[in-house]
Amino acid sequence: MMPHTTARRPTVYLSASDMVRLVQRKGIAACIAGVARRIEADFRRWNDFDKSARVACHSAHGVIELMPVADAERFAFKFVNGHPGNTRIGLPTVMAFGVLADVDTGAPRLLSELTITTAIRTAATSALAARHLARAGSRVMAIIGNGAQSEFQALAFRDLVGVRELRLFDVDTGATAKLVRNLEGQGFAIAVCRSTAEAVSGADIVTTVTADKARATIITPAMVAPGMHLNAVGGDCPGKTELHRSVLEAASVFVEYESQTRIEGDIQQMPADFAVTEIWRVLSGQHPGRTSEREVTVFDSVGFALEDYSALAWVAETATELGLGEVIELVPQAADPKDLFGVLRLPVPRPLPRLVPATA
Amino acid sequence: MMPHTTARRPTVYLSASDMVRLVQRKGIAACIAGVARRIEADFRRWNDFDKSARVACHSAHGVIELMPVADAERFAFKFVNGHPGNTRIGLPTVMAFGVLADVDTGAPRLLSELTITTAIRTAATSALAARHLARAGSRVMAIIGNGAQSEFQALAFRDLVGVRELRLFDVDTGATAKLVRNLEGQGFAIAVCRSTAEAVSGADIVTTVTADKARATIITPAMVAPGMHLNAVGGDCPGKTELHRSVLEAASVFVEYESQTRIEGDIQQMPADFAVTEIWRVLSGQHPGRTSEREVTVFDSVGFALEDYSALAWVAETATELGLGEVIELVPQAADPKDLFGVLRLPVPRPLPRLVPATA
Repeated sequence: MMPHTTARRPTVYLSASDMVRLVQRKGIAACIAGVARRIEADFRRWNDFDKSARVACHSAHGVIELMPVADAERFAFKFVNGHPGNTRIGLPTVMAFGVLADVDTGAPRLLSELTITTAIRTAATSALAARHLARAGSRVMAIIGNGAQSEFQALAFRDLVGVRELRLFDVDTGATAKLVRNLEGQGFAIAVCRSTAEAVSGADIVTTVTADKARATIITPAMVAPGMHLNAVGGDCPGKTELHRSVLEAASVFVEYESQTRIEGDIQQMPADFAVTEIWRVLSGQHPGRTSEREVTVFDSVGFALEDYSALAWVAETATELGLGEVIELVPQAADPKDLFGVLRLPVPRPLPRLVPATA
Repeated sequence: MMPHTTARRPTVYLSASDMVRLVQRKGIAACIAGVARRIEADFRRWNDFDKSARVACHSAHGVIELMPVADAERFAFKFVNGHPGNTRIGLPTVMAFGVLADVDTGAPRLLSELTITTAIRTAATSALAARHLARAGSRVMAIIGNGAQSEFQALAFRDLVGVRELRLFDVDTGATAKLVRNLEGQGFAIAVCRSTAEAVSGADIVTTVTADKARATIITPAMVAPGMHLNAVGGDCPGKTELHRSVLEAASVFVEYESQTRIEGDIQQMPADFAVTEIWRVLSGQHPGRTSEREVTVFDSVGFALEDYSALAWVAETATELGLGEVIELVPQAADPKDLFGVLRLPVPRPLPRLVPATA
């Protein structure tokens, strides 16, 4: 007998393999485009959301964060870490998963991997911002930091911004070689560079996606040309920056959620009254974004919970469309919801043997 | 081929059915005792933990909360809701799940149901506090609110405090009947009462576990006898209280984590300088707890993340001992952790058909 309770509000689980299946069936370009559309639509209704800066737990080797956000219908949160040393022991720098729940009952409805999804939504957000902040006709992008997120950035900027030439640099030449290999046949002219300065030279857009948890100065004022757009993604927690403060001083700076970015973004180097513009104002037409050909613009991106809300909503819809995921029993099923104790007396079948997932 | 990465840091998933199996195999009394020992040990090393008040998302019908905490080795968080109206549509008032992760890498290692576990840890915490706050020889307990948590409170107080007589009241007589049924043969003399005042009369300990999200006055000064201990569990978020403020004024009040309880507990009614004592001071011997036979003591419990940390740690250990749970692929497995994009090209087996869990 299947009790009626959580069957009416089932929790669907999407594993990392399910997400690979989802991306393979939709195509990565369609996934980036779909998530970008959701993010844009949600940022345009910014005031519908109950927002807060994420909760971060810092340690010697990295950070673990919880990122909640909600509107009147759905609550979303993401668990995400950032441990730059992980790759040395074969683990990803960033691992994530998240949940969508119904606000009216609190029932969790989707539990999903978000490691792959985070790369997609970060790239989608960067490209959305650049569409309003980069010069019209921008075709050349430097990518500094060629790790796990770099392919996603390249593809998002190809499809949403029109980038056709890439200039790559990473202190790890193996990472750059991997990026070149993965982007083969994707319509880019690619130059592998020997320094950040060389990569940045001649670029319309500079994307920094480095991982070190340090006050780095990847981009110095001498590298910045008039009219450049800087998409600064890697500086995203206290003590982790990528831009020289003079670069920020000379630029128009755009952020996701000001109160969080003041703590985590490259602008942590700046005084509390340093002027910034929240990107939702640009996406909703309240602010023009770039206002001249020579203006230097910076998108000081740290990642905001609303992007994960949008991505989770898109993933939920797409998984339903494709029939992916499985119903899990995250919450006990009691015939009488006041009789939790009674659940402990129900017969339960023998557990399955512990399984190692079959994915390659 | 099984890539080496997350296989070295697998994530184990414990469903609600797994937790039922765990409790059935250990026995509920052993579970409460085991969790209580962990909570006591962890509260005694209070200063080892990175603590914060939980993040709450309030809506018209309830609240959804995230409760993070960490020490140098493990990060834990719980997702939990509180929606008193849920039982009217066949859903539990409280649903919860949580995660234990490694601080050194951020890898999630255990994803577990916490609905059943929350009832166990809440009861264990209440009984631990009462061991130091109730008069020696306390045998009679009133339970006001006979819903999902009440059986667990009764058993914890039986085993850890020595309670042998229960006086029950709930506005829902069906809930009381359920509690009486579930406690049959558990060694209690039980009186079903027609009002809170009748239930409280003659009790050594009064446990309030009501669910309404309202400024209720379940316990008034006239009901309180000298020497009573009040275990106030149900008043646990802004606008949700159970005790008349004069009851608090006349009592010695103990809390879990002061900064959270000021917002959520019954003491939200009191001025910011109203004196309270954190219970870890009592458990670690820095504060004597009760100091006289006539003192009225209140444990203004709201639920703190550290209790879930302790419970998750006990669950992880016990699930390993019993071989319960299954390894899930919450994080993608890349041969090269910098090549997340490459994972999207790996062959993945066809998904299993969507399954409805076979439990019950």
